[in-house]
Amino acid sequence: MSKQYVYLFRDSDASMRNLLGGKGANLGEMIQLGLPVPQGFTVTTEACLRYYEDGEKLADEIVEQIENAMKDLEEIEGKKFGDADNPFLVSIRSGARVSMPGMMDTVLNLGLNDETVKGLAKLTSNDRFAYDSYRRFIQMFADVVKGVDKAKFDEVYDGVKEREGIENDADVPGEALKEIVDGFKEVYKREIGEDFPQDPTEQLLASVQAVFMSWNNPRAVVYRRLNDIPGEWGTAVNVQTMVFGNMGDDCGTGVAFTRDPATGEDVLYGEYLLNAQGEDVVAGIRTPDPISTMKEVKPEIYKEFAKIMDKLEKHYRDMQDVEFTIERGKLYMLQTRSGKRTAEAALKIAVDMVKEGIISKEEALLRVEPNQLDAVLHPTFKPEALEAATPIAKGLPASPGAATGKVYFTAEAAVEANKNGEDVVLVRVETSPEDIEGMHVAEGILTGRGGMTSHAAVVARGMGTCCVAGCHDIQINEAQKYFMAEGVRYNEGDFISLDGNTGNVYGEAIETQPPVLTGDFTTFMEWSDEYRTLKVRTNADTPNDARQAVEFGAEGIGLCRTEHMFFEEDRIPAMREMIVSRTEEQRRAALAKLLPIQKADFKGIYEAMEGRPVTVRLLDPPLHEFLPHNDKDIESLAKQMDMPFEDLKAIVDSLQEFNPMLGHRGCRLAITYPEIAEMQTKAIIEAAIEVNEEKGYNLVPEIMVPLVGEVKELTYVKNIIDEAAKAVMEEKGVEVNYLVGTMIEVPRAALTSDAIAKEAEFFSFGTNDMTQMAFGFSRDDATKFLDDYYEKDVFEHDPFERIDQTGVGKLMEISVELGKSARPDIDLGICGEHGGDPSSVEFCHRIGLDYVSCSPFRVPIAKLAAAQAKIKENLDK
Amino acid sequence: MSKQYVYLFRDSDASMRNLLGGKGANLGEMIQLGLPVPQGFTVTTEACLRYYEDGEKLADEIVEQIENAMKDLEEIEGKKFGDADNPFLVSIRSGARVSMPGMMDTVLNLGLNDETVKGLAKLTSNDRFAYDSYRRFIQMFADVVKGVDKAKFDEVYDGVKEREGIENDADVPGEALKEIVDGFKEVYKREIGEDFPQDPTEQLLASVQAVFMSWNNPRAVVYRRLNDIPGEWGTAVNVQTMVFGNMGDDCGTGVAFTRDPATGEDVLYGEYLLNAQGEDVVAGIRTPDPISTMKEVKPEIYKEFAKIMDKLEKHYRDMQDVEFTIERGKLYMLQTRSGKRTAEAALKIAVDMVKEGIISKEEALLRVEPNQLDAVLHPTFKPEALEAATPIAKGLPASPGAATGKVYFTAEAAVEANKNGEDVVLVRVETSPEDIEGMHVAEGILTGRGGMTSHAAVVARGMGTCCVAGCHDIQINEAQKYFMAEGVRYNEGDFISLDGNTGNVYGEAIETQPPVLTGDFTTFMEWSDEYRTLKVRTNADTPNDARQAVEFGAEGIGLCRTEHMFFEEDRIPAMREMIVSRTEEQRRAALAKLLPIQKADFKGIYEAMEGRPVTVRLLDPPLHEFLPHNDKDIESLAKQMDMPFEDLKAIVDSLQEFNPMLGHRGCRLAITYPEIAEMQTKAIIEAAIEVNEEKGYNLVPEIMVPLVGEVKELTYVKNIIDEAAKAVMEEKGVEVNYLVGTMIEVPRAALTSDAIAKEAEFFSFGTNDMTQMAFGFSRDDATKFLDDYYEKDVFEHDPFERIDQTGVGKLMEISVELGKSARPDIDLGICGEHGGDPSSVEFCHRIGLDYVSCSPFRVPIAKLAAAQAKIKENLDK
Repeated sequence: MSKQYVYLFRDSDASMRNLLGGKGANLGEMIQLGLPVPQGFTVTTEACLRYYEDGEKLADEIVEQIENAMKDLEEIEGKKFGDADNPFLVSIRSGARVSMPGMMDTVLNLGLNDETVKGLAKLTSNDRFAYDSYRRFIQMFADVVKGVDKAKFDEVYDGVKEREGIENDADVPGEALKEIVDGFKEVYKREIGEDFPQDPTEQLLASVQAVFMSWNNPRAVVYRRLNDIPGEWGTAVNVQTMVFGNMGDDCGTGVAFTRDPATGEDVLYGEYLLNAQGEDVVAGIRTPDPISTMKEVKPEIYKEFAKIMDKLEKHYRDMQDVEFTIERGKLYMLQTRSGKRTAEAALKIAVDMVKEGIISKEEALLRVEPNQLDAVLHPTFKPEALEAATPIAKGLPASPGAATGKVYFTAEAAVEANKNGEDVVLVRVETSPEDIEGMHVAEGILTGRGGMTSHAAVVARGMGTCCVAGCHDIQINEAQKYFMAEGVRYNEGDFISLDGNTGNVYGEAIETQPPVLTGDFTTFMEWSDEYRTLKVRTNADTPNDARQAVEFGAEGIGLCRTEHMFFEEDRIPAMREMIVSRTEEQRRAALAKLLPIQKADFKGIYEAMEGRPVTVRLLDPPLHEFLPHNDKDIESLAKQMDMPFEDLKAIVDSLQEFNPMLGHRGCRLAITYPEIAEMQTKAIIEAAIEVNEEKGYNLVPEIMVPLVGEVKELTYVKNIIDEAAKAVMEEKGVEVNYLVGTMIEVPRAALTSDAIAKEAEFFSFGTNDMTQMAFGFSRDDATKFLDDYYEKDVFEHDPFERIDQTGVGKLMEISVELGKSARPDIDLGICGEHGGDPSSVEFCHRIGLDYVSCSPFRVPIAKLAAAQAKIKENLDK
Repeated sequence: MSKQYVYLFRDSDASMRNLLGGKGANLGEMIQLGLPVPQGFTVTTEACLRYYEDGEKLADEIVEQIENAMKDLEEIEGKKFGDADNPFLVSIRSGARVSMPGMMDTVLNLGLNDETVKGLAKLTSNDRFAYDSYRRFIQMFADVVKGVDKAKFDEVYDGVKEREGIENDADVPGEALKEIVDGFKEVYKREIGEDFPQDPTEQLLASVQAVFMSWNNPRAVVYRRLNDIPGEWGTAVNVQTMVFGNMGDDCGTGVAFTRDPATGEDVLYGEYLLNAQGEDVVAGIRTPDPISTMKEVKPEIYKEFAKIMDKLEKHYRDMQDVEFTIERGKLYMLQTRSGKRTAEAALKIAVDMVKEGIISKEEALLRVEPNQLDAVLHPTFKPEALEAATPIAKGLPASPGAATGKVYFTAEAAVEANKNGEDVVLVRVETSPEDIEGMHVAEGILTGRGGMTSHAAVVARGMGTCCVAGCHDIQINEAQKYFMAEGVRYNEGDFISLDGNTGNVYGEAIETQPPVLTGDFTTFMEWSDEYRTLKVRTNADTPNDARQAVEFGAEGIGLCRTEHMFFEEDRIPAMREMIVSRTEEQRRAALAKLLPIQKADFKGIYEAMEGRPVTVRLLDPPLHEFLPHNDKDIESLAKQMDMPFEDLKAIVDSLQEFNPMLGHRGCRLAITYPEIAEMQTKAIIEAAIEVNEEKGYNLVPEIMVPLVGEVKELTYVKNIIDEAAKAVMEEKGVEVNYLVGTMIEVPRAALTSDAIAKEAEFFSFGTNDMTQMAFGFSRDDATKFLDDYYEKDVFEHDPFERIDQTGVGKLMEISVELGKSARPDIDLGICGEHGGDPSSVEFCHRIGLDYVSCSPFRVPIAKLAAAQAKIKENLDK
């Protein structure tokens, strides 16, 4: 017996979603519910996989099953496919397990040819309708099955309309449509090199194959990658009896939602057009009417429709998005699915449905995609405004949110403009520590160079400011204060807009809306807290960030990067003095200047965290990052530091590295310059002692040694820390507990975690660096080839966005196991940016970490992901 | 009961080497053999460890045991320590498990003070002898125990000699020596701030502690690191009854070997001085006489001595290095140990001893340190000539050997000078592909920049040419044709010399001697081949290298780096054309030019290898390595390529990488530009078909895909290879077998080796890159901090020289296990530079690799190491 590759709708239901795709399974389910649905059948997702296995060929047995299903369908409908007198027409639509834009569009009216069109005309006594249907079919078939540009057909259509002086499509008479059909067939022949196929079965099989092919078109592949949909799922094909919304004014078609998808309000929402076919509503040639008006125009149908909508929502226990058609006064449902919604609506619907007793809290928590929360935490563009805009360039989506403002090319100008009440977008080739103030006042930041880990990107994410980085599409001239995009010049003061979620840059102002943290958001976060067991900390380097994170519910700081403190304008001179020191004495003198500054930083952070745990990482980046690199800047710094240009230049040169990622940084700095770690420890401990005294806290600072690969590195630095801490405590006459731990980011550290755990009281996985080292490519450099990797199906995801569980995850699991074997109560966290990625949070939960740490603006996202991970784990039990 | 920390010689023997050190154990052993050895005792290596555990203090129980042993010794000798009438004097010498230069020197005549010196004078009726012994003691004690510069004492001594008009030390009369002793005590007091210690026990304990301290002095630490001696071994201290070679002409002292340590010839070899103490022989103040002259001067003693020497060599079954003293006509043996020898001697002695039936072949193979073979494979400096020279600078020892020649600063000048018969040393800031010809003719290469993986270093190692790279001590001015070192200017045509084993640069000609591959070498290599099971291949990129390697016994090529072919002057234009191509068509056109060149390369290599297996690696380095980087060179290339400067500059800029090591290279190139892999496959397969036909071989080319981290990368590239190979075979109408495999160098590849082995027919471990990625530091950048790591005891070895078995080795073991689980007959090799390092070769044998691959000049070394690994494995069974 051959496998069953084709199912009639009447033999299907919602449980068969994986096999039949969402659309097919739901059509079956609606039939089981007794709803008015045109009959049809589904070619399974397995047929799609088989199609690829067979080298992009439809196996004979699949063809046979399709033909048999057509026969069954003819019998049900009492019509014959290709019958010149009473022709049977069908629609073809793709339908994967989840809704997937980017795949093949619908083909309607399939089965029409030069003969059947006459039959249809006769049967309906409506030439206009029949030939309109035919011309639509030819165009759709040519477009979606054969890839011919629609515009080629529009030329013919518009030509006839113009010649006849017709404005509205509805006014094109039957005779003209016949001429248009002839014209369309000519276009088809010219473009494809053969006649438009007259055999309905040939039309059908070609369309089925086109759907299968569309599963792997580039848009679909990109969408799958972005949405975590495995390529092995495949798509199904739905073949459905045509019903016509375009047979007259007792006909129509529309789309609707059971609740408002923008706000979540519990009202029917949608729009419809009378005397139209499906694509007219979407194409926007005619403006559809709001669904509410149907109440008066077609009261009976509206009543039936509202009842069906209610039934569907109750049945599926979720807001539904439906398509329907009215044929000669009779309502048909053509599709139902869970409706896409804005973050605001998602929260409201989830909370409301719990209140209404429709779903449980657990279900509600699982209903909201954690990443969606980004939208309620950052400004967004008004959808209407965004729709009207076209990007002028695209960079890396370095920090989420939406920004609109006037362009400024220096931090000073940005600050000045901001004082005058202007909204500012700071545009720089790349940012440096000197730009911090300008970055602070900007709505958004745009850089021409640098990747997802560039200064601009990292700082912007910490601030929660929208940032598009490494935008190679534009040429920035900072000196002349303009940038070029697509040959257009944008000057200082011109408006632009940035989309930090997509990396799009717009050459105009686009209205934004501020984030709204509604009561639903608060309720939802409380529910998350009830369920999750994984703690959520934040990565914060300043009291401001820390306060922001606490507001979002952070339970501590998992990563306080001390280097960011040194970049600030008032500190960098002392830092530079430290770096150019030739002797330990000079270095100690410079460090002595930094000590009170660092201490004040830590005090501010401890205070902002109100007693919550704080993990401070010792200095990590290579020292050359703190120095200028071009001769002009070196010269000006040399003057400022009162040293000969050549000397400073020689120091800068000597600090240059071939591969800074693999250079003199992390604990390696503390080993060559123990006095830096000593100063930082003093600042950490002194600050804790003082804040404990002032506020009555019992702070236990956690000192984190970065980039350890060999336990002796940690032992060496730990000794420095212990000695410095002891000295402070003796001097102050106060004891304070502190922990010493390490980042696990170097592969060798993961592999030798048993030895390391003997010294380390906690591990924090630095999965950014670990990903770079495990894969052997740097995040910045990988941008050059990762697109090829996605296109050629080598990678499905960006391993810097979600943890690569196979490789990097394996290192983490090895490390967790070895670490716990040596120190069973070791505290385990993650502080790479993966800590804010939902799928990675789930992974961290699964392998037994104690907490994740992420940027303040991702704390709610991580909390929800952690709750979902726990709920899923319970469900799996 | 307390632990025994002190052993009398008479209670010791050679089996106690670990506890007593080599010197102590052998003194005991000689006593057991009935040889004339002054009695004494050994403070154990455990006492040394205890000393450090106790915070650099001698525990009371150790002091007590030393004092008890002194009492025993006094009883044996019938003298009293500190007895003013019949003083008992001892020598103090360090003695670790293995001979370790760098530790504390000897202290002789300990026990002398202002009183006992008088007793000694009286007893021997020899003022001169007594005060000469005392002045020597003061100076040695001050120098080796207290760290006072010897020269401070020499001033006093020489002052008296000059004043008295005395030439020879032996002519300084007793009265003058008394004055000198007073002067020495004054110097001591001035330098140390206290009187010279008069209490013999104080002298003794201070000396014992000084020996223990010297275990961790910087020179000792460096020596241990270089020679793989663990810090935990500790050193012992030997306290021995003094015998005096300086009591008159019936006295003397000397050092000797049972065979000639330079040639290995079976003759007594050594030198001695009459009326002298130990250090006089070494210090070179008087010229010692060859040991052979003793035959006539002291025939009786010589006879006894020769008998003892014979007995010792037979007993120890190895060439011995001894120290002896003659006191008033009686011979005393003071030390015996296995003698150090040149590589040539090591080979000869090992082979001779097998022939003489003294040792087995296995023992002979274990007797020669594999790295020693470097000396018989490369030119070396004549030892006398080297001794007289002082380095002017030090760089990285990038490629072994010794070179002397005239300095030239461009490849052209070097080639020209070579044509005129000059020996040439090429000096460049850094080398580039254009310099290849100059590098070929040079005796040695010196660069100012670049690390152990720089172009100069890699190419030189492959050529077997001596190279010192990254020599920051010199300032090179290529334009003006000179370099500066220590303020001295070296011009074109001046002689310099390079030591590729140490990195030393000398500002003069030093005579070199060519390598001599004797019959002993051949015999020895044959024995190695008998025992080893690990195959040894070579890394070779040219027919020349391949031929050289075959001469050294290589069994195949484990790594043929195709990129080196592209660097050659006649190819690089087409390569550059390929790189700057904007379209696939342009790229294919450029590749078409490269195809015949590559094919010819492979044919040449296949022919040189005479049917042995050849593994070819597809293009690996980032493309920017093939392009110039500064504006001037870009401009000249642009002209040459007939394209606008701006366009070429833009391409160069766009190819720039933040971290080239982690950039767009390896299989990533083949994924973005499949046509490169396609061309290379065609060249590999076509060449194999043609050579098979011409020579009747049955070559099975092995195509290696580099830098795979995810199996889908390999799958993608393998498809390209398979298709290209198929096309060639169809075109030629000939089938040829080939293998497709991968480097395992990315940590993730090791962790997912089961998946990868499903696609790969062989693995070759690229441990250079794997070390960089596992540790997270690049070889070039690590030079900035690795010295600190050694100094601070964080690392004991350079992980780029020997495999880090704990981390990188673990990745290899994981990979071997996973790889074999998926493909039990998978072929496993290593092609990183570790493949030529003996300890790494042993590791590779242990984890079950099939072969190692190393540069041609290290093939014999790897073979010997492989044989030793197998022999040791058998011994362990």
